[in-house]
Amino acid sequence: MIKIGIVAVSDRASQGVYEDISGGAIIDTLHDYLLSEWQAVYRLIPDEQWLIEQTLIELVEAEGCSLVVTTGGTGPAPRDVTPEATEAVCHKMMPGFGELMRATSLQFVPTAILSRQTAGIRHQCLILNLPGKPKSIRECLDAVFPAVPYCIDLIGGPFLETKPDIIKVFRPKI
Amino acid sequence: MIKIGIVAVSDRASQGVYEDISGGAIIDTLHDYLLSEWQAVYRLIPDEQWLIEQTLIELVEAEGCSLVVTTGGTGPAPRDVTPEATEAVCHKMMPGFGELMRATSLQFVPTAILSRQTAGIRHQCLILNLPGKPKSIRECLDAVFPAVPYCIDLIGGPFLETKPDIIKVFRPKI
Amino acid sequence: MIKIGIVAVSDRASQGVYEDISGGAIIDTLHDYLLSEWQAVYRLIPDEQWLIEQTLIELVEAEGCSLVVTTGGTGPAPRDVTPEATEAVCHKMMPGFGELMRATSLQFVPTAILSRQTAGIRHQCLILNLPGKPKSIRECLDAVFPAVPYCIDLIGGPFLETKPDIIKVFRPKI
Repeated sequence: MIKIGIVAVSDRASQGVYEDISGGAIIDTLHDYLLSEWQAVYRLIPDEQWLIEQTLIELVEAEGCSLVVTTGGTGPAPRDVTPEATEAVCHKMMPGFGELMRATSLQFVPTAILSRQTAGIRHQCLILNLPGKPKSIRECLDAVFPAVPYCIDLIGGPFLETKPDIIKVFRPKI
Repeated sequence: MIKIGIVAVSDRASQGVYEDISGGAIIDTLHDYLLSEWQAVYRLIPDEQWLIEQTLIELVEAEGCSLVVTTGGTGPAPRDVTPEATEAVCHKMMPGFGELMRATSLQFVPTAILSRQTAGIRHQCLILNLPGKPKSIRECLDAVFPAVPYCIDLIGGPFLETKPDIIKVFRPKI
Repeated sequence: MIKIGIVAVSDRASQGVYEDISGGAIIDTLHDYLLSEWQAVYRLIPDEQWLIEQTLIELVEAEGCSLVVTTGGTGPAPRDVTPEATEAVCHKMMPGFGELMRATSLQFVPTAILSRQTAGIRHQCLILNLPGKPKSIRECLDAVFPAVPYCIDLIGGPFLETKPDIIKVFRPKI
């Protein structure tokens, strides 16, 4: 069974001040994309770097996720530490994801450059930071997801099948 | 009073071999943009990493600047160390600024990729590297400044008001 | 005499499982571009980080190369460590090269964001990672080479003359 971790990082949502809708937006989008059966492993945590790191490690090591997607905590504010936590637990950074997500969001808002989102590899798992807003989440996933299944192939993860009418993924012929 | 640091980094200008015009070009551009009253804190220093670091720290800590803009020292030459000094004093890096400035300058010159300019946050201050040439300074500021006031809001700095007919800044509705 | 190092990084090609054609593709492209006389210093090695580092250092220090171009080992797979080796031996990183190469390749394949290729300076040498596929090699070189001769000027290397009908290089008037 393919497992995908969804980590919503938000002080206020994790305290119950409001409901997390970003995590749900990611799960809905992935259900939209994926033909393969998969299971969501959801976590809602505050913006604490050690806790984000621990959660990412747990989702990779204990849960065996092949993909972990975070939402929130990528801005310039003092409590925004998701990219730092991601970099701390990854063995290999993937700068192209952040570059493309910022370039994509920049078509909609000039403040896209304030997002510090990144991606990296831990063992056989791709960890990907997404922004906090549901609309931006879909825009960013639409931009980078075409490369995600092949990335997971290359790191020894499961074969992700997608719905070609919803998202065109690409696997180069070798 | 809003304070903005302008740091011209140049061995030759700091020795009086020629006049620094880049620092003045930044001050002129910011006067053009800003409706809020503000005060420029200007420094002209040689390309010494320890001195750039010390100057940036002084402008943030002692002068209380909310924004510090550097010019010069971002190329590949041995004496170009402004990005290294910036990274050394920042608590958080903002890769989107450098990416957008390079992509913007690339529309004018193919050597834009040689610029290593970056940006980051130290306490409640945004530190931003600009290129050395007055023409490129304006092009880069026009590209990234729309996101600067909101960035300073997010790190707890003062509210910067701008002239909407000169520069359109963006603050998302929350 | 201008020396250019070409380092093909591939476990299988270095074991003789197949022939390295990527290194040859780089040499052909550089012959196409360059009017100046130059000498290729070719190495074919497996994806071992320490060996890539040692090879890069040898090409800069012992061979006196002004430019070293690698091919292969820039993806997300566990054995892909060329960018890490490059960063380890460079005194200064040049993020604009990787950004432009990914943006260029992205016009052809969405998996371009999986490439982690970078560039940097060691002493008076520019070290540049290229992708592994001959077609992508040419696309990437066409994109970034216009800035390469001026970069080598700035770090104190030899003056590279190119064929203006094949590649338009740019040197700003100072």
